[in-house]
Amino acid sequence: MANVVEIGSYKIGDGKFYVMAGPCSIESKEQFADTAEGVKKSGAHMLRGGVYKLRTSPDSFQGLGSKAFNMATEVKTQLNMPFISEVTDPRQISDLLNVVDVFQVGSRNMHNYDLLKELGKTKTPVLLKRGFSGRIEEWLKAAQYITAGGNKDVMLCERGIRTFETATRNTFDINAIAYIKQNTDFPIIADPSHGVGVKNLITPVALAAAAAGADGMIVETHINPSEALSDKHQALNLNEFESLMLQIKRVLNALDRDLA
Amino acid sequence: MANVVEIGSYKIGDGKFYVMAGPCSIESKEQFADTAEGVKKSGAHMLRGGVYKLRTSPDSFQGLGSKAFNMATEVKTQLNMPFISEVTDPRQISDLLNVVDVFQVGSRNMHNYDLLKELGKTKTPVLLKRGFSGRIEEWLKAAQYITAGGNKDVMLCERGIRTFETATRNTFDINAIAYIKQNTDFPIIADPSHGVGVKNLITPVALAAAAAGADGMIVETHINPSEALSDKHQALNLNEFESLMLQIKRVLNALDRDLA
Amino acid sequence: MANVVEIGSYKIGDGKFYVMAGPCSIESKEQFADTAEGVKKSGAHMLRGGVYKLRTSPDSFQGLGSKAFNMATEVKTQLNMPFISEVTDPRQISDLLNVVDVFQVGSRNMHNYDLLKELGKTKTPVLLKRGFSGRIEEWLKAAQYITAGGNKDVMLCERGIRTFETATRNTFDINAIAYIKQNTDFPIIADPSHGVGVKNLITPVALAAAAAGADGMIVETHINPSEALSDKHQALNLNEFESLMLQIKRVLNALDRDLA
Amino acid sequence: MANVVEIGSYKIGDGKFYVMAGPCSIESKEQFADTAEGVKKSGAHMLRGGVYKLRTSPDSFQGLGSKAFNMATEVKTQLNMPFISEVTDPRQISDLLNVVDVFQVGSRNMHNYDLLKELGKTKTPVLLKRGFSGRIEEWLKAAQYITAGGNKDVMLCERGIRTFETATRNTFDINAIAYIKQNTDFPIIADPSHGVGVKNLITPVALAAAAAGADGMIVETHINPSEALSDKHQALNLNEFESLMLQIKRVLNALDRDLA
Repeated sequence: MANVVEIGSYKIGDGKFYVMAGPCSIESKEQFADTAEGVKKSGAHMLRGGVYKLRTSPDSFQGLGSKAFNMATEVKTQLNMPFISEVTDPRQISDLLNVVDVFQVGSRNMHNYDLLKELGKTKTPVLLKRGFSGRIEEWLKAAQYITAGGNKDVMLCERGIRTFETATRNTFDINAIAYIKQNTDFPIIADPSHGVGVKNLITPVALAAAAAGADGMIVETHINPSEALSDKHQALNLNEFESLMLQIKRVLNALDRDLA
Repeated sequence: MANVVEIGSYKIGDGKFYVMAGPCSIESKEQFADTAEGVKKSGAHMLRGGVYKLRTSPDSFQGLGSKAFNMATEVKTQLNMPFISEVTDPRQISDLLNVVDVFQVGSRNMHNYDLLKELGKTKTPVLLKRGFSGRIEEWLKAAQYITAGGNKDVMLCERGIRTFETATRNTFDINAIAYIKQNTDFPIIADPSHGVGVKNLITPVALAAAAAGADGMIVETHINPSEALSDKHQALNLNEFESLMLQIKRVLNALDRDLA
Repeated sequence: MANVVEIGSYKIGDGKFYVMAGPCSIESKEQFADTAEGVKKSGAHMLRGGVYKLRTSPDSFQGLGSKAFNMATEVKTQLNMPFISEVTDPRQISDLLNVVDVFQVGSRNMHNYDLLKELGKTKTPVLLKRGFSGRIEEWLKAAQYITAGGNKDVMLCERGIRTFETATRNTFDINAIAYIKQNTDFPIIADPSHGVGVKNLITPVALAAAAAGADGMIVETHINPSEALSDKHQALNLNEFESLMLQIKRVLNALDRDLA
Repeated sequence: MANVVEIGSYKIGDGKFYVMAGPCSIESKEQFADTAEGVKKSGAHMLRGGVYKLRTSPDSFQGLGSKAFNMATEVKTQLNMPFISEVTDPRQISDLLNVVDVFQVGSRNMHNYDLLKELGKTKTPVLLKRGFSGRIEEWLKAAQYITAGGNKDVMLCERGIRTFETATRNTFDINAIAYIKQNTDFPIIADPSHGVGVKNLITPVALAAAAAGADGMIVETHINPSEALSDKHQALNLNEFESLMLQIKRVLNALDRDLA
């Protein structure tokens, strides 16, 4: 039977559809709070927001780091929403444990086994993104680095793979959603934002993921995408997010499922 | 405005969802007729069936060739369903013109420009499959080889691309469905059978394609998949096909669309 | 024992290194003659020159077609050099048979089995380029489409594969050179021009192919690359070609081999 | 001008060819010492040997860890050879600093920017392997994470990329050797062992890399490959390594270069 991951009162993998939304990076108290309120109003269940960012170039914005901790804590407490954020270094774990309800392991770290082993020693759920060139088999073995340590609360996240195609940022592997669902016990979360990386295409890809059986999705949303400090080309604004949620609900209902 | 391709009374690209179904190869009159009746009963609009097959190995079954012409003509006439079949060589065109209502250009021939030019001189609609390593940009230019000759009735077909992943036969590029829909005038047809190549995963991938906005799908269906002479691992039986059609209809309805 | 392909007095696969050189396309009598004389002076054994070109866009130069036949025949006769040119359509074979000493099957046609079958009925050697996304196993099966017809004179040509890398046009698969040499009986020819597609990198890649054991190479060379009608960014001029030949000879000698 | 990385009396990038050899993992004092003596006799300049291993599965051998420190120190001191070993976690750096002369960053960690930043604070040279799906541009930006911290002593290492080909373990990107040499100031080291991953093909790929201009190579060598605890299918034995060195020298000489 499929593994259910409990986050507060939520049970990811129970058949309902769970939505994590928020900005790529926490940029300021106001930016995070306003975005969070907006996504909550449209039905999001959990908040995402980057504190430590992994960027290809050392000259790009690297996240606010620990300065964002208080902002995150205030907002999530006020809205009573679980908070998920990325961990990029084993040495961040002890501090992050005070702030996050779910650890996100980014695509670049699927193979960072030392990090995964440390997360396996915690009791906090982990969202393990697929490496952008990770085979499904390797992804499942990476998950075992966490579960072998005693932490069974692993959710997998498909976020697009690297292919020869250049018209989109990545190639969202819809097959993987169906494969994971049928062949493993892990809940599978879709990340259409990175999966296609082109704003206008995020909604159809998200609907596709829901139709294929995903247990939820994580979506980059920003109060003002054109001013975002990272991933501005793939963040939905609050209206777009609201519209997406309405359509997702209809697709889920058509297949006898529902938003949580 | 999007281009609408007329096939008999059907207008592919008009917003409705069109379904082409049938066996990978026509193997016998009975096999083709029984499959065709079955898929018609479940709501398929057009029949597919290979006459000339392109197989990786010269030792594999290569299709019945012209022997299948009479079988195809009898069945399609009796059921009053348009027939689509693959053309692999310019020298086949004149004969196939008497049998097919739509030419299918297979993935291996997306770059066969001499073939495309010849099809551009006909007035018969063409379903142009994406090369398994064709970039979207190259696919659109291949389509121009047909339209430049005067034949504007081109439908594109996403059938999965070649990636590093080995758990599935190909990687169905769901992003491409959304991209083609938003950025071109060509109708876009999904081929979930080749797109994932694993029987149990075809239905979720087909539902995903419908949710992402595809104008239709082409699905390998067989009266008895375990005895199919080609692609036996990815053919649906008639019950599975019927179940798929019911779910597709519900997803389409949820998004204010419908089967044709 | 390795298969030796005889072309005039040459025996490709006998351990010596054979060089085919010339322009991407035959553009005029003068352009082809001048380039041909130049490459002969530097030690090339055979002439290449496109007559029918496969171009991604229908608006690009498509080759002179049959108008180039007389030019090619005159030049190859005068210089007494075998001539290799690409065939893209079964209907071209009978005419090309009067002109070419070797048929080239381009990367886009590795999967064009109808074409391969027709070439298998001739007695003219075939240079079968690897599809840019063809697995080695598929390449070998494509070769069988030719040999099954009775024509055993097949040479394989590695010309770069499609990957995620964008800094070079293709990724030259040096592993494939070594693999084919050790595991098959076919001679293996390197095409560094397409394999890397960046002029300054062609010489090191060609040297690498020779060091890895290739039986020869095919190199795009032009009397005036900046004015070439196709592939201008990857054609060597005559000085660069001469320099390449001198270095190739030294690398071959170091490994107890030599130019033919 | 190209950057020269000093390791003891060696100056990598000065035009000479440098060879790092040794086992994938240090398994015992005897195994490491015997292999080390063997490769030194054949002309290797530096020793490689894994202490912390990153393995796809948590059930595979993970290296001896700190237990190998004394073995490594004894052997490298006795033979007076610099020692290179992989670092996989920022918390290992302080201990490894006492043992290694060069830090190796493995393919899975090219994107582990927290690790790279820490290495940038040391004064120890770093061999930065290319991520198996890293674009050249991303690789160079990863190198900047190290150099931005003040440590300019970075060597790049091409170790094969992930493609659709399955006949070899990876696809060695020979183009990248030529590209890095011509377009950057970093020394470029070839890793033919991982680059092809099939024992019989390592020598031709290594020769190719030398011919293409690599500044050196790192080669897995084992006193008894069939009993190796990791990478047994791609380790050369001492005879094979000796033969490789003799051929490398001849290819280098042919191009007016030499082993250091």
